[in-house]
Amino acid sequence: MKKHVIDMIEKRGVSLTDIAEIVYELQKGYLPVTMDICLDVVDSVLEKREVQNAVLTGIALDIAAEKREIEEPLLSILLADEPLYGVDEILALSITNIYGSIAFTNFGYIDKLKPGVLSRLNRHKNEQCNTFLDDLVAAVASAACSKLAHSFEKKERTQDID
Amino acid sequence: MKKHVIDMIEKRGVSLTDIAEIVYELQKGYLPVTMDICLDVVDSVLEKREVQNAVLTGIALDIAAEKREIEEPLLSILLADEPLYGVDEILALSITNIYGSIAFTNFGYIDKLKPGVLSRLNRHKNEQCNTFLDDLVAAVASAACSKLAHSFEKKERTQDID
Amino acid sequence: MKKHVIDMIEKRGVSLTDIAEIVYELQKGYLPVTMDICLDVVDSVLEKREVQNAVLTGIALDIAAEKREIEEPLLSILLADEPLYGVDEILALSITNIYGSIAFTNFGYIDKLKPGVLSRLNRHKNEQCNTFLDDLVAAVASAACSKLAHSFEKKERTQDID
Amino acid sequence: MKKHVIDMIEKRGVSLTDIAEIVYELQKGYLPVTMDICLDVVDSVLEKREVQNAVLTGIALDIAAEKREIEEPLLSILLADEPLYGVDEILALSITNIYGSIAFTNFGYIDKLKPGVLSRLNRHKNEQCNTFLDDLVAAVASAACSKLAHSFEKKERTQDID
Repeated sequence: MKKHVIDMIEKRGVSLTDIAEIVYELQKGYLPVTMDICLDVVDSVLEKREVQNAVLTGIALDIAAEKREIEEPLLSILLADEPLYGVDEILALSITNIYGSIAFTNFGYIDKLKPGVLSRLNRHKNEQCNTFLDDLVAAVASAACSKLAHSFEKKERTQDID
Repeated sequence: MKKHVIDMIEKRGVSLTDIAEIVYELQKGYLPVTMDICLDVVDSVLEKREVQNAVLTGIALDIAAEKREIEEPLLSILLADEPLYGVDEILALSITNIYGSIAFTNFGYIDKLKPGVLSRLNRHKNEQCNTFLDDLVAAVASAACSKLAHSFEKKERTQDID
Repeated sequence: MKKHVIDMIEKRGVSLTDIAEIVYELQKGYLPVTMDICLDVVDSVLEKREVQNAVLTGIALDIAAEKREIEEPLLSILLADEPLYGVDEILALSITNIYGSIAFTNFGYIDKLKPGVLSRLNRHKNEQCNTFLDDLVAAVASAACSKLAHSFEKKERTQDID
Repeated sequence: MKKHVIDMIEKRGVSLTDIAEIVYELQKGYLPVTMDICLDVVDSVLEKREVQNAVLTGIALDIAAEKREIEEPLLSILLADEPLYGVDEILALSITNIYGSIAFTNFGYIDKLKPGVLSRLNRHKNEQCNTFLDDLVAAVASAACSKLAHSFEKKERTQDID
């Protein structure tokens, strides 16, 4: 299942490295991270069933919009990535929720700044609809940031005891 | 837009009266409600943009699943209404969130008991996929319950002052 | 930290066995659970940092209300466990969110039915304020139910492959 | 009640103008806002019962921490505004949730950048504990941003019809 989810994301033009780069840029100022660590965390986020379901559902909606298989007025809302639509952020929220409140604040920040691959996705080039994909990528990156922060804190606490 | 949303819900086999009946059954023990009041509140919930977007998106996914326009493995998950899928409840949560925590606890209760029209939807008769619809109906009913409780409380507070 | 959290819960009159019993009652119809399995899952939920923080904060508010260390009008709201207050459910939601949407629907159900220890807590005997405690216990139980459902499903999937 | 909530916020060193300024700074690039409009929207957000309860509860926790009326280890966590604590963001989330997903993404952004009064609150001067207050202020500002965006969009849609 994880392999299938990663394939879908890559078919839509986003690699795990793209997502890991967002994580790296956001965390390098706070934590002793490397790109390898970031890739591992992104990979582990994609192992969660809830994350997989949100990603597959969002991409299915993007594809259905591209193929005009959705009725109006929803079709136009999706193709225009209307800022007040909101369901894209809701799916993203279902990913960040699992990773606690750090994931949630990071998401808002990433979603506004659109670092790395996100600014490319947001241009919706070549008729590809990325209304859900960009928020899902931002959510996976935010979840990974939160997981990193928690795991480094755990390590520190354990070392304090030693 | 509201008219279109109500049309969609009715085309899928649920009337506003069906939803109002759930609200009435849940609230009649606590509040001096009538079916007319319940219908009005359900109608007002469907006026909210976020609610409309969640309903249209969920129904679009149900329809796409019926038409086999969604790829595997998501297609089978949707057609089977798999209990651990979870994205249907997430869309519902985006409706209840707007109406505060009473909406949220009512949703969990309604979702388990499946009163009125919900038990019918849950049987997925005639090849219709109701994976999202049943949760959306439960969410609109829960939101209406919460709005009712808040509005009766406001009335009481105002009368206390008189 | 986990030990401290369990101590606090027990000092407020709730044992891990009380929580495990709620889980057992809710799941025995669906899953091959035993009380021992339920106890283990409840224990593992209490290992999560976010859960610990929510529990400690809620109990701190219950205690501060009992000691009248909170200003009016919040004090009266807490002592009366006012149904429209809502912050108690919000803290609970921060626990269930981490465990996905099954935790969230179970919470609404448990919160309405008040099985086992919850009906006792809800009577607020002996001047103890349980405004937060009852929702936190319901949330931990719901989270445990969700974790159980996911782990049994994983086991089944793995056996299918064999 | 609203008057009491505003009094509490002001006693803790934040004026409605401080909050309106955050809204103004965030929205002036997108919407034809004035400080008067921003003040009105902030005021209307504080009219909501759920918002009032979250604000009063968070401030009560800040005050209890200052007075050392909370037990360890929670006391140290609150006084240090520990980044992984998370319950402060949860209370904030209960405010933004009511205003839809724009409120939620704005919150993450404001919470990271800490514009205006937030950077002052974050320095926790004069022994005042602002662990909850800063997130609550950010949440009220985000909710106001979302309400503004929705109301301007409504106006535009109505004018399109004319």
